[in-house]
Amino acid sequence: MSSTSEKAFLRALSGEVVTPPPFWLMRQAGRYLPEYRQVRASCNGFLDLCYTPEKATEVTLQPLRRYGFDAAILFSDILVVPDALGQPVSFREGEGPRLDPIRDGEGLKRLSQENFMSHLAPVFQTVSNLSKAIPETTALIGFAGAPWTVATYMVEGSGSKEFVETKKLAYSQPNVFKAMIDLLVQATGDYLIRQIDHGAEAIQIFDSWAGVLPEEEFSKWVIEPTRQLVERIKTERPGIPVIGFPRCAGALLLPFVERTGVDAVSLDTSVPLDWAAKHIQPKVTVQGNLDPIMLIAGGETLDREVKRIISALGKGPFVFNLGHGILPSTPPENVARLADLVKGRV
Amino acid sequence: MSSTSEKAFLRALSGEVVTPPPFWLMRQAGRYLPEYRQVRASCNGFLDLCYTPEKATEVTLQPLRRYGFDAAILFSDILVVPDALGQPVSFREGEGPRLDPIRDGEGLKRLSQENFMSHLAPVFQTVSNLSKAIPETTALIGFAGAPWTVATYMVEGSGSKEFVETKKLAYSQPNVFKAMIDLLVQATGDYLIRQIDHGAEAIQIFDSWAGVLPEEEFSKWVIEPTRQLVERIKTERPGIPVIGFPRCAGALLLPFVERTGVDAVSLDTSVPLDWAAKHIQPKVTVQGNLDPIMLIAGGETLDREVKRIISALGKGPFVFNLGHGILPSTPPENVARLADLVKGRV
Repeated sequence: MSSTSEKAFLRALSGEVVTPPPFWLMRQAGRYLPEYRQVRASCNGFLDLCYTPEKATEVTLQPLRRYGFDAAILFSDILVVPDALGQPVSFREGEGPRLDPIRDGEGLKRLSQENFMSHLAPVFQTVSNLSKAIPETTALIGFAGAPWTVATYMVEGSGSKEFVETKKLAYSQPNVFKAMIDLLVQATGDYLIRQIDHGAEAIQIFDSWAGVLPEEEFSKWVIEPTRQLVERIKTERPGIPVIGFPRCAGALLLPFVERTGVDAVSLDTSVPLDWAAKHIQPKVTVQGNLDPIMLIAGGETLDREVKRIISALGKGPFVFNLGHGILPSTPPENVARLADLVKGRV
Repeated sequence: MSSTSEKAFLRALSGEVVTPPPFWLMRQAGRYLPEYRQVRASCNGFLDLCYTPEKATEVTLQPLRRYGFDAAILFSDILVVPDALGQPVSFREGEGPRLDPIRDGEGLKRLSQENFMSHLAPVFQTVSNLSKAIPETTALIGFAGAPWTVATYMVEGSGSKEFVETKKLAYSQPNVFKAMIDLLVQATGDYLIRQIDHGAEAIQIFDSWAGVLPEEEFSKWVIEPTRQLVERIKTERPGIPVIGFPRCAGALLLPFVERTGVDAVSLDTSVPLDWAAKHIQPKVTVQGNLDPIMLIAGGETLDREVKRIISALGKGPFVFNLGHGILPSTPPENVARLADLVKGRV
């Protein structure tokens, strides 16, 4: 396998075995960095940061300067999509997101794509800025939440543990729920295509709550919407790789990979490496999957775990990453140690 | 395969294919039943109910009268173990449990087995009562939390999303964490053996948070302590079957089954049925795995899903159950419908 790209991250996504592996970290721009907290403090709420291109650009670039990651990921939030569809999202300090929930067909009428793209114009501006600002060996990742995960917030009105309202809607009124998912597939597709047109070179689709569904519902609400998104990107913007992240899908990761058409899949922390090497990596590039708390713990355990992951997955197409987003209490010096470990400098 | 037991549930656990399948539901005694809420209202807190044998006996029996389950499970809580070890547990209404957290070797000194068995005497009395009171075709299940899951509450001091403190302790000070786990293995073993001596005919070990660990840590903190518990029960009380429930273990369910020695494994909602039928059921009896929210939704979706599960798993050794505990908002009439569906009466 070969690729003309000079960017290690894109070569790995195209199926090439790159040594040492390219790496980036989910939520690499974030509260563990003092320079991020400084920018964040200047904003009027979290979404203000997402919608202010200069600031969103700056926080995206910050971790690149420290650690030389092989990819930058647009700084934004998966909930800008419902926000732009007319279901306003707010973040209160120390709490999760809040939305006025939509739980029936009547509620769906509140949503509209009319102002969707103009609402998201600042995000596209950030992508443009980043496309010019990042180092030439660094790739730029655009992203969106998967329709299922975004829908859980739209129906629950907040984060959730059991997803009772979302599942009730999906199980009892599948036509209403499908209308919501269809709208999200359309809007999310528009959003991702526009990110690509502004300079995103790869796309990651985050499905944080994929793991709570039984298999037939997983097929309907996780696999099928993702498949449609991948198909549209492949058709309209050929050559742009797509990474899926159906978190905690367990054994359902295999049908996800086989049926969605993704180029790569991000492995959560619990995915066993030998199983992934045997069943997943022959089909797609794998990305992952250090426990973010290993990065907090540091020390010998971190060293050993990083080597274990690279040794198990580094012989195939592989991108080193975490199994879940980096946590605010992570010591920045442990991330520097991680960078040295992945790049073989220690 | 054959068994001399007349109890369908125990026959299924011994490897027999029983048609229609035996069934019970996790948290079948609980807030969805008005008669439970009435008893609960007469108690001075949740643990008071667990520690009052007449009341705990009564709420255990309530769902049997309504639905004729094939097994009764002792009404208690996994956190009576730390409570009895000297780390008091409280439950405030509408919140989860609260404990004064233990996060170092010094904190471990607060724990002692000295009053452990006497503290739990009311639980053993409940088991005795139940052993006499349940119908003769109904089996009695004793249970405990797995050491890993119980330890998360002891270290965090409450429920958790990320388990930062527990993992930090396990990863950074494995010797301290191992001392806690070893104590829990010893105490939990004593507790389960005593439940058996009072009439429990099978044991379930609940490991609700098994799914958050990377595989090597899963091996240390989930598989190994469970293996020790199973070994002790098999040695000291041969013939008593043990059901493991490493929730959300994903592909790690397979090494769990192969290495712990459990007789059966409870499948969470996300486990795909064909995968379980192919990889797990040839090794042990499987139990599960209806999404509890299907039971809230009811209607045709419930009917179809129950039939799908029985059709996929009913040809091997199988116990019908939920994939997670029943939720308070479950309509009792849907549970009656479920009973009719499982028993082939509709």
